[in-house]
Amino acid sequence: MSEKIKLGILGGGGDSLIGVLHRVASSMYDKYEIIGGVFNPNWEDNLSFAQKLGLSENRIYIDFDTFIEEELKLPESERIEVVSVLTPNFLHFPMAKKLIENGFHVICEKPLTTTLAEAKILENALEKSNTIFAVTYTYTGYPMIRQMREMIQSGIIGEVHKVDVQYYQGWINPILLDKELRKTIWRLDPKKAGISSCVGDIGTHAFNMAEYLTGLEVKSVLADLNTRYEDNQLDVDGTILVRFSEYVKGVIRSSQIATGEENGLEVKIYGTKGGFNWKQENPNYLYYLTDDKPLQVLKPGHAYNGEVSLDGTKLPPGHPEGIFDSMGNIYYGVAKAIRKQAYDSGEYPTMNDGVRGMKFIEKCVESHKSGNVWLDI
Amino acid sequence: MSEKIKLGILGGGGDSLIGVLHRVASSMYDKYEIIGGVFNPNWEDNLSFAQKLGLSENRIYIDFDTFIEEELKLPESERIEVVSVLTPNFLHFPMAKKLIENGFHVICEKPLTTTLAEAKILENALEKSNTIFAVTYTYTGYPMIRQMREMIQSGIIGEVHKVDVQYYQGWINPILLDKELRKTIWRLDPKKAGISSCVGDIGTHAFNMAEYLTGLEVKSVLADLNTRYEDNQLDVDGTILVRFSEYVKGVIRSSQIATGEENGLEVKIYGTKGGFNWKQENPNYLYYLTDDKPLQVLKPGHAYNGEVSLDGTKLPPGHPEGIFDSMGNIYYGVAKAIRKQAYDSGEYPTMNDGVRGMKFIEKCVESHKSGNVWLDI
Amino acid sequence: MSEKIKLGILGGGGDSLIGVLHRVASSMYDKYEIIGGVFNPNWEDNLSFAQKLGLSENRIYIDFDTFIEEELKLPESERIEVVSVLTPNFLHFPMAKKLIENGFHVICEKPLTTTLAEAKILENALEKSNTIFAVTYTYTGYPMIRQMREMIQSGIIGEVHKVDVQYYQGWINPILLDKELRKTIWRLDPKKAGISSCVGDIGTHAFNMAEYLTGLEVKSVLADLNTRYEDNQLDVDGTILVRFSEYVKGVIRSSQIATGEENGLEVKIYGTKGGFNWKQENPNYLYYLTDDKPLQVLKPGHAYNGEVSLDGTKLPPGHPEGIFDSMGNIYYGVAKAIRKQAYDSGEYPTMNDGVRGMKFIEKCVESHKSGNVWLDI
Amino acid sequence: MSEKIKLGILGGGGDSLIGVLHRVASSMYDKYEIIGGVFNPNWEDNLSFAQKLGLSENRIYIDFDTFIEEELKLPESERIEVVSVLTPNFLHFPMAKKLIENGFHVICEKPLTTTLAEAKILENALEKSNTIFAVTYTYTGYPMIRQMREMIQSGIIGEVHKVDVQYYQGWINPILLDKELRKTIWRLDPKKAGISSCVGDIGTHAFNMAEYLTGLEVKSVLADLNTRYEDNQLDVDGTILVRFSEYVKGVIRSSQIATGEENGLEVKIYGTKGGFNWKQENPNYLYYLTDDKPLQVLKPGHAYNGEVSLDGTKLPPGHPEGIFDSMGNIYYGVAKAIRKQAYDSGEYPTMNDGVRGMKFIEKCVESHKSGNVWLDI
Repeated sequence: MSEKIKLGILGGGGDSLIGVLHRVASSMYDKYEIIGGVFNPNWEDNLSFAQKLGLSENRIYIDFDTFIEEELKLPESERIEVVSVLTPNFLHFPMAKKLIENGFHVICEKPLTTTLAEAKILENALEKSNTIFAVTYTYTGYPMIRQMREMIQSGIIGEVHKVDVQYYQGWINPILLDKELRKTIWRLDPKKAGISSCVGDIGTHAFNMAEYLTGLEVKSVLADLNTRYEDNQLDVDGTILVRFSEYVKGVIRSSQIATGEENGLEVKIYGTKGGFNWKQENPNYLYYLTDDKPLQVLKPGHAYNGEVSLDGTKLPPGHPEGIFDSMGNIYYGVAKAIRKQAYDSGEYPTMNDGVRGMKFIEKCVESHKSGNVWLDI
Repeated sequence: MSEKIKLGILGGGGDSLIGVLHRVASSMYDKYEIIGGVFNPNWEDNLSFAQKLGLSENRIYIDFDTFIEEELKLPESERIEVVSVLTPNFLHFPMAKKLIENGFHVICEKPLTTTLAEAKILENALEKSNTIFAVTYTYTGYPMIRQMREMIQSGIIGEVHKVDVQYYQGWINPILLDKELRKTIWRLDPKKAGISSCVGDIGTHAFNMAEYLTGLEVKSVLADLNTRYEDNQLDVDGTILVRFSEYVKGVIRSSQIATGEENGLEVKIYGTKGGFNWKQENPNYLYYLTDDKPLQVLKPGHAYNGEVSLDGTKLPPGHPEGIFDSMGNIYYGVAKAIRKQAYDSGEYPTMNDGVRGMKFIEKCVESHKSGNVWLDI
Repeated sequence: MSEKIKLGILGGGGDSLIGVLHRVASSMYDKYEIIGGVFNPNWEDNLSFAQKLGLSENRIYIDFDTFIEEELKLPESERIEVVSVLTPNFLHFPMAKKLIENGFHVICEKPLTTTLAEAKILENALEKSNTIFAVTYTYTGYPMIRQMREMIQSGIIGEVHKVDVQYYQGWINPILLDKELRKTIWRLDPKKAGISSCVGDIGTHAFNMAEYLTGLEVKSVLADLNTRYEDNQLDVDGTILVRFSEYVKGVIRSSQIATGEENGLEVKIYGTKGGFNWKQENPNYLYYLTDDKPLQVLKPGHAYNGEVSLDGTKLPPGHPEGIFDSMGNIYYGVAKAIRKQAYDSGEYPTMNDGVRGMKFIEKCVESHKSGNVWLDI
Repeated sequence: MSEKIKLGILGGGGDSLIGVLHRVASSMYDKYEIIGGVFNPNWEDNLSFAQKLGLSENRIYIDFDTFIEEELKLPESERIEVVSVLTPNFLHFPMAKKLIENGFHVICEKPLTTTLAEAKILENALEKSNTIFAVTYTYTGYPMIRQMREMIQSGIIGEVHKVDVQYYQGWINPILLDKELRKTIWRLDPKKAGISSCVGDIGTHAFNMAEYLTGLEVKSVLADLNTRYEDNQLDVDGTILVRFSEYVKGVIRSSQIATGEENGLEVKIYGTKGGFNWKQENPNYLYYLTDDKPLQVLKPGHAYNGEVSLDGTKLPPGHPEGIFDSMGNIYYGVAKAIRKQAYDSGEYPTMNDGVRGMKFIEKCVESHKSGNVWLDI
C-alpha cells in the first residue's frame, strides 16, 4: 500500500498552466498521489481530462458538493487527504471553507479570498479545525529565498533597516492600450477581480516576500496607485510606502504596465551589517553584500547553504531546475515517437547520436595518444 | 483505461539524482505512467523504493532477466512499453541490447555504451527491430537550444563557419589533489569508466551539442588531453580541435579541473550573417548577434519563438522552470505537516500569510483613495 | 596660437577626485587648455599643485577675489574664458555669482547652491548676463543615456507612463553605525550640508535623470525620508513618489544606507510602446524592451545609435572607456621607470613581452602550415 | 619649471583613435606633457593637428629623421624624453631602433615589429642602451587584471594548471564576405600585415595576457588557423593549443569572424585551489572561484585589493571609468556652446537643471516633515 498522500484537485483542467504547475510540483518528492477531483465544470471535459491523467473514473466528481459528499463516504484510509484549490478566485472562499469544515487539508492558490472579511471567516474556521492550510505564495519555495531568510534570521546582515521589493510586469500594457479590449478582461473588471488588479495580483506577492524574508511585520502603508486611464477602474500600477517601525522603512513597487517586463520580482534588503539582492528571473543567484568584502554570489546545492535550502534542492550545483524541463521535453518527444505522432527530428537524441558520441570519445583518446594528430570520425 | 505510455525503470533507486530527474521528466506532459522495474540490485531496497513510489509490488522484479521474462508473459495491452536504462555505464549495453531484441522501446542514459564496438552492435540490433531508441543528451531539450537549432536551420546566421563549445566543471579537482583519494573513485578507474573520464563524461555532451545545433557532422578531430598527474591514467581535461570541412572549424573544450566551475556548458556558434551565444547555467537566455544590429536576447514562451521551442515551454515568459521546484518545495513542506513530521516555519505559507495578503490589498486601495495617507495594517 | 578654450579651476587640488575627473574630462576632446586658478586655500599647496600640473605661476592666484581682479586686467585674448567651480558646496553660490557678473562662463559642480533662494538669485544673474553656465550632473554625459533620451524623444516607446529611478549607495552605513562617528562628518551636519544628506547628494541626480531622459517635468512630490536614528538630523534614505501628470507617475528611490551598494544609479522608464532599463555601473548596456519582440541591448559606437550618442563615443564597440585608464596606468608605470621610481614589474609591458609576442605569431603560423604540429617557443 | 616628462608622439594625428587613447592616457596622472612630434606625413595636416592640440610649432617636425636631428640639438633639459610610436606596424622597427640608439625612451604600439628577426635586433639594441622601452599591451593596465596577477602570484589559487584565453571579434566578417572588398584591406594583405592577421593582431594580446597573469612561460604551441576562403591568404581565426609544462596546458582562441562579437577578450585561469574569470567588456568585475565557497566578485577601488590595483584606480567603487567620458562629453558640450557652435539641448545641464534640483530637495524635505503629503514643485 502506497505511503503517498492522497491528493484531490479542484480546477486546473484543460490547458490550465496552474494545473500543470501543481501536478508537476506534487510529483517532485514522491510524496503525493493524485486520486481525483473536479477539473472542469463541464462533465465531458472533466472526464476526458481525468482520463488523460490516467485517473480512475470513480473518483472524478460532477461538482464540488458531490466531491465532499462522496469522499466522506469512503473509509479514511482511502479518502482524499488534501485538496488543491485551483479554481477562479471567487470560488476559493466557499470551497476552502467547506473543505476545512469537513476535515480536509487544503493547498489554496492565492489570493486567499476576494475580501478581507472572507479571509477572516476562513481564519476563524481553521482555528476550530485540525487541518493543514497552505496558500501558494509560490516564490517562497525557491532554495535561495529560503537561504536568504535563514541568513537574515541568523543575524548575518544585522538589524534590517531598508526593504525594497519590486514586482514589474508589462502584460496588461497591450490590452490597456485598446479602449474596447480593456473593458473585456476579467482582471480589470471589479466584479470579477475585486478591488484591485495590480496590488491584488502581484503587489501581494511582493508584500508576502518582504515579510517572509525579514520576519518583520509591515505596520502601515501609504499607497499611490494608478489606473492609467479615467475609464479604467482598477489599479494597474502602484508604489506603496511601507513602515516596519519608525526607523525601518521600505517600498513595494508593482506594475502591470512596465512594458516589456516579464515577471520582474526583485528583492533588495539592507541591514546594519550587510545586504541581499535577488531576482526571480535568475532565481539561483543570491547576491550577498557587505561594506568591505567582495560581493558574494551564493547558489543552490552547495554545502555552504543551510538545511532548509539544501532540502529544497534536488540537483547538484550548476544544474538549473530547467533541466527537469529539458529532460521532460525529451520524454515528450519519445512519447510522440512511440505513439506514432508527428515530431521534429530534434525532439530526442537517437541511437545515431549515441554511436557518434562513442566514436568521438575513442578518436579523441587515440588522437591524443598518437601525439595530437588529426583523425577522421 | 489510461492512455498513458507504460514506463519501466532500470536503476535510479535510493538517492539517485538521475532517478529523480527521469521520474519528474516523465510526469511533465502527462504522457507516461511508471509501472515497475528494477530500481536496486538489493531486493529489500528495491521493494521499499517501489513502495515509496506507490507502485504495485507485482511489477517489481528481482533482476533484469526476470523483468524481461515476466513482462513478456503479460498481454501487450498491459505490458511495459518503454524502459529507462539508468544503471551504471557498463550495463547499458547488455540491457539495451536485450530490450531492443524483445521489442521494448528504450530511453538510455549516456554514454550509450563503454566502447564504440558495443555501440555499433546496438545500432545493428536496432535496425532489425521496430523500436524507438533515445539517448538522453539532456541539454538538447532546453527550449532555447531548440530555438537556436531552428534558427540556424532557417539560415538566419547564414553558413556556419566557427563552432566553440565549452563544458567546464571543477568537481574532480579536490579529489585529484589527494593522491590516495584519486585512486578510489570509479570515474578515474579505467576498468569502470572506460578509456576516458572528461571527454567520455562531458566532452561528449559538447560534441553532441555542436552537431545537434548546426546540423553539421564533425569530420575529424585533433585532441590534446591532460591527466594532470603521472599516476592518473584518465584524462580530466582536454581541448579538441574539430573540423566540419576545410574552412569550417571549431573547438571543443572540456575540463573537470576548472576549479570552482559548476556545470559550465557554453555554446558559441558563428556564421556568415550572425552568431549565437548560450550558457546552460542561464538556459533561458539566447543571445543572437549580428554585424550591425543591437544584440538580441530571446527567451522562452514568446510568440517570436518557433513551434518546437514553444511546444517545450510550459510556462509564460519570465517564469524560469525553477518555479516547478519552488512550488514542489511548498508541496513538500505541506506533506511534512500533514504527516506530522518536523518542518521549518518557512516551508509553506499559511492561512496567516493569506489573511495578511488580503489586509495589504484592502489597505493599499483605501490609502490611495483617501489621498495617499498612511494606514495601519 | 592655440584654438583651445582657456580654462580656470577653483578648488580640486591635492588628492581631490573631483579635480582629477574635471581635468581628464577637459582634456578628452582637445578643446580646453588649463591656464590657472586657485586650487587650494593654502598658498604653498596651491603653488606646488600648480607646478605638478606644469602651469605657469603667474596665473595661480592667492584667492578667488584676486583671481577675478587679475584676470580682468588681462586682454580678452589672454584671459581665462571659463571657470570650473569645484569648491565646497557653500562656496558655489558666491563664486558662481561673481563669475557670472564678470562675464566668465561657468562649469559648476552640483548641487548648484545650498538653498533654493540662492539658486534663484543665480538664475536671475545669469539672465542678465551673456555667459554659458553648466551644472555637472555628470551621468547625463554617458553615450547610452543620450541614446535613450533621443529614442524617447523620437517616440519609440510611445507616451511615457511610468518612471522609476534608483540611486542606492551604502557608504554612510559604517559611519552611521557609530554614534560618535556620525556626529563628525560634514554630510550629516545641517550647518555644512544644508537641509538634506541623501536627497541633496544623490536623490537630486535621480531626479535630474528622470527629467533629462523623459523631457517631462515633475509636477509634485510626496516624500518619505529616514534619518535612521533619533539623534541624526539629516535623511540618509528616502522614497519619493513623483507625479508628472494625473496618470503619469513615478518613484525616486535613494539611499546611503543600502549596505554594500556602491553607486547604484538605475533607470527604468516605461511607455505605451516600449521601455528602457539602464544601470550606471554597466553604463554601456542600454536595454530596450517591447511587448512582443526579443529584448534588445544597445551599446556605444554602433551605427544604429543617434548622432549625439556617437558624438560622445571615442572608441569602437566593445572597448569600455576603462581602456583609457588601462592605457593611463601603463603610461604611469613608464613614468615611474623613467623617473627611476620604484615600480612593480607588472606596471608596463617590456621589450621582452614584445619579442615573445612576435615569436608566438611566427610559431603559430609555422605550426599551422606544418600540419598542426607542436613547436617550441 | 614643470616636473612633467616631455613626451613626443609619432603618428596618431587626424581622426586616429589610437592617438586619442595615448593622449588621454598620458594626461591621466599629470605625469606627461606633450611637447611635439610628427603626427602626419603631410606637413599641412601635421601642422594643423598640432595647432588643434595647442602645441608650439617649432617642435613639430617634417619627418622622423628631422625630429631626431633637431631634438638632439636641444639641451637635455628641454629635449623630448620619451616618444610614443603610433605609426603603421612596418614603421615600428626603424623608428624604435633609431630612438633607442639616440637615447630616447620609447612607448611602442603593438605588434613590436613585423618579424621576429626585427624584434630580436631591437632587443639587442635595447640591451646596449640605457632607455626604458614599453610595448602597449593595453589590457594589462586594467586594475582587476593587476589584482588577478597579484593574487595568482600570492598563491591564492595554488598551482596554475589550466589557462584558457579567448579573443573573439567579428569585424572582419562583413568585409570577408565580399570577394572584392577582402582584397582591399591592409589587414589581409601579407605585404602590409605580415604573416598573420588574427594571431598577429589579437591572438598575441591573448598570449601576452596568459603569460602576464600566470607568470608562466608558454613552452610550445600547436596551431590550427583558418583563412576561411581559398583566395584569402591570412588567418582570420585560429585555435592554438599551448603547453606551459607537461601537465599544465592551455588554449588560446582568437577570431575575427566571430560574427557580432565586439572585443571579446576573456580570461579563465584555474589552479589547484581556485580559479578566476574576467571579461574585458566588463573589466571591473573579477570573478574568483573556489571548490567550496560562494563565488566572489572583486571590483576596483576597495581596500581588499592590492597596492598595484589600487594605485591604478582613480575613482571610488561603483564609478566605472566611463564617468571620465561622461564628464568629458559635458565639457565638450560646454565648449560648443562657448564657441557658439550648434549643439543639442541635452549636451550639458544648464542653470535651469540646477535650480530645479534645489527645488526638488527643498520640497522633498518639506513633504516629509509635513507628514508625507503631496507638494507641487
